[in-house]
Amino acid sequence: MANVLVVHGGGPTAVINASLYGVIEEARQQDAIDHVYGAIGGSEAIFKERFLDLMAYPEDKLKLLLTTPATAIGSSRYALEQEDYEAMPAVFKKHDIRYVLLNGGNGTMDTCGKIHRACKDAGVCVVGIPKTVDNDIAITDHTPGYGSAARYLAETVAEVGVDVKSLPIHVCVVEAMGRNAGWITAASALARKKPGDAPHLIYLPERPFHEEEFLEDVKRLHEEKGGVVVVASEGLKDESGKPIVPPVFQTGRSVYYGDVGAYLAELVIKKLGIKARSEKPGICGRASIGLQSAVDRDEAVLAGREALKAAIRGEGGKMVGFVREETPDGSYRISVNMIPIEEVMLYEKSVPQEYINDRGNDVDEKFVRWCRPLIGGDIPDYMDFQELYKESKR
Amino acid sequence: MANVLVVHGGGPTAVINASLYGVIEEARQQDAIDHVYGAIGGSEAIFKERFLDLMAYPEDKLKLLLTTPATAIGSSRYALEQEDYEAMPAVFKKHDIRYVLLNGGNGTMDTCGKIHRACKDAGVCVVGIPKTVDNDIAITDHTPGYGSAARYLAETVAEVGVDVKSLPIHVCVVEAMGRNAGWITAASALARKKPGDAPHLIYLPERPFHEEEFLEDVKRLHEEKGGVVVVASEGLKDESGKPIVPPVFQTGRSVYYGDVGAYLAELVIKKLGIKARSEKPGICGRASIGLQSAVDRDEAVLAGREALKAAIRGEGGKMVGFVREETPDGSYRISVNMIPIEEVMLYEKSVPQEYINDRGNDVDEKFVRWCRPLIGGDIPDYMDFQELYKESKR
Repeated sequence: MANVLVVHGGGPTAVINASLYGVIEEARQQDAIDHVYGAIGGSEAIFKERFLDLMAYPEDKLKLLLTTPATAIGSSRYALEQEDYEAMPAVFKKHDIRYVLLNGGNGTMDTCGKIHRACKDAGVCVVGIPKTVDNDIAITDHTPGYGSAARYLAETVAEVGVDVKSLPIHVCVVEAMGRNAGWITAASALARKKPGDAPHLIYLPERPFHEEEFLEDVKRLHEEKGGVVVVASEGLKDESGKPIVPPVFQTGRSVYYGDVGAYLAELVIKKLGIKARSEKPGICGRASIGLQSAVDRDEAVLAGREALKAAIRGEGGKMVGFVREETPDGSYRISVNMIPIEEVMLYEKSVPQEYINDRGNDVDEKFVRWCRPLIGGDIPDYMDFQELYKESKR
Repeated sequence: MANVLVVHGGGPTAVINASLYGVIEEARQQDAIDHVYGAIGGSEAIFKERFLDLMAYPEDKLKLLLTTPATAIGSSRYALEQEDYEAMPAVFKKHDIRYVLLNGGNGTMDTCGKIHRACKDAGVCVVGIPKTVDNDIAITDHTPGYGSAARYLAETVAEVGVDVKSLPIHVCVVEAMGRNAGWITAASALARKKPGDAPHLIYLPERPFHEEEFLEDVKRLHEEKGGVVVVASEGLKDESGKPIVPPVFQTGRSVYYGDVGAYLAELVIKKLGIKARSEKPGICGRASIGLQSAVDRDEAVLAGREALKAAIRGEGGKMVGFVREETPDGSYRISVNMIPIEEVMLYEKSVPQEYINDRGNDVDEKFVRWCRPLIGGDIPDYMDFQELYKESKR
């Protein structure tokens, strides 16, 4: 008898449950596996032995995992102590858990490596499933969860762009998640279908933010177009690396920053006298099932399946990664590789400078080409009689 | 030869273009009509004669109107002057425009009444099509645009609720649109599928906001549940009628308020020491096509069709209204009536006090029953292993 334990760590994505579904589906096809346990409430559930057998549920219920936001087995930000790690082999033995799959971001992969070291001699194989909306996990081409967050922002900004264009009197700043990495912010560029489409300015945390240049650009664009759509990362910093919005409040280890979008909109109102507003979809973006990317979901299922297969093969201490394949016709294809956890832990992956334009207010076509397949479809077509009227007068 | 002119006024909704589609479809079936012109850029387009013939476009293009956010013919907030009204009959005569349909909210209906008075002796029939996300137009049971805004907020809050529950450590405040009327805010109650579901607190601008009571309620719920989801109207006011967030900036006639959601989250952090964040989907909500309500869209098409029919019948100076029918099985059905514009203009419709609970932190089942059919479907089912685990331990 051999069982699998799945543990979720950190903040949710729109497809983390799809990876869980992949694990369960794979387990059903593997003779070696009896039960798939979910750790209810993240890593602390391990030594509290809060396990639920997920294979006991009928397929139609399990299928709901593909369209359930956040994590259906819960998560935690509990910091495991040395004694917790030491207690684990006995817990796993008691429940015949031979395979442990940790689904999470950089922090969870660190935990994954530590559990691997604590349990490998006890014959427990620990494998990581990558997950983050931020796409900041190293080495893998991209991470499950990112494609959906990217699609959410791109499609939402496309819609906001049409809204702003229909009554072109103001500047609209959309704040995007990703405090240290601008991958989600950058994905807003996919909203554009033709030159001049929103977003008109994109600011990533990878580049120091210059208020004067921002105001110059907004002023010029507002004179040209009327309505201007700006997408700004929540983590924008100035030349000295200081967040452009001062902390609202600090308590112990936690710092609470003000909203970058609201700050920039206020700047436009006060310094330029132009109407401005800000939107901050925030966690609505990572929880949206309507704008989930089908490619992302399928890849999340694949990552779950492959993690279990790797565990059964004995590849402990590794994380599932994606490699982008070269194809003769340039079509999108990935393969899976297994990446040693220590290598993953070396650095947080931010957007390469080469993807960002010189002025630091946009991303280039290379980024767009890289990102486009991940959102799983095109931005819809809209009817634009204002444009057609202009053409008719030319 | 007789032509129709459609004019859009004020801010967009997710279905204003669906009403435009309804007008065009109806016009194609009416022998009396030759062309449907769109006024490109709102009411000022009338005397600038910026007209585009919309019937010239093929059906597959026009169908895109059903899924195009905002207004495909543009809009404006231009305040028409007396001389503009006086100039109109000649413009309409020149273009053989016998029917003018104005699509908009309270402000636009006022304009509609004025154009009617200015042009009725010239044989031009002017009819209003109601439109607003805020649902604050009087007499009609509800207004096209509201159902989609309501569905957006309800489904988004349901998703955010699952997100917050999966890592139940913080308070999340979602700010809802509607500065004077709480209809959109109230619709968040539809997110609930069972007792205890998010949202846990709902605050409407129709009731004075008491910070002390809010903090008491948040504290209690946080102790009970961990994660707490609050939905707050952007227009919350205190006992004296003053906005709870002081104006950030004032310039001429414009006042810029700070974000209520961010303000309340900060209050929770500072006064209760509990982690908190805020989300402000803002105009993303009125522009979302993915969460458009099919009922709302169909009714918007109907409103467009009925407006043209009424104009042809000679019912100028009226607005299309919806009446909720009593049905034997309690199922949802509306009929259309024509409401004199002067009656519409008497008051802004806010949420009746009887729909709000005594403590002012929720709406009641009567509101939910009234609102539910408008969002055009149920909130999806999600898989919740945390809940199933709890049940298994009972």
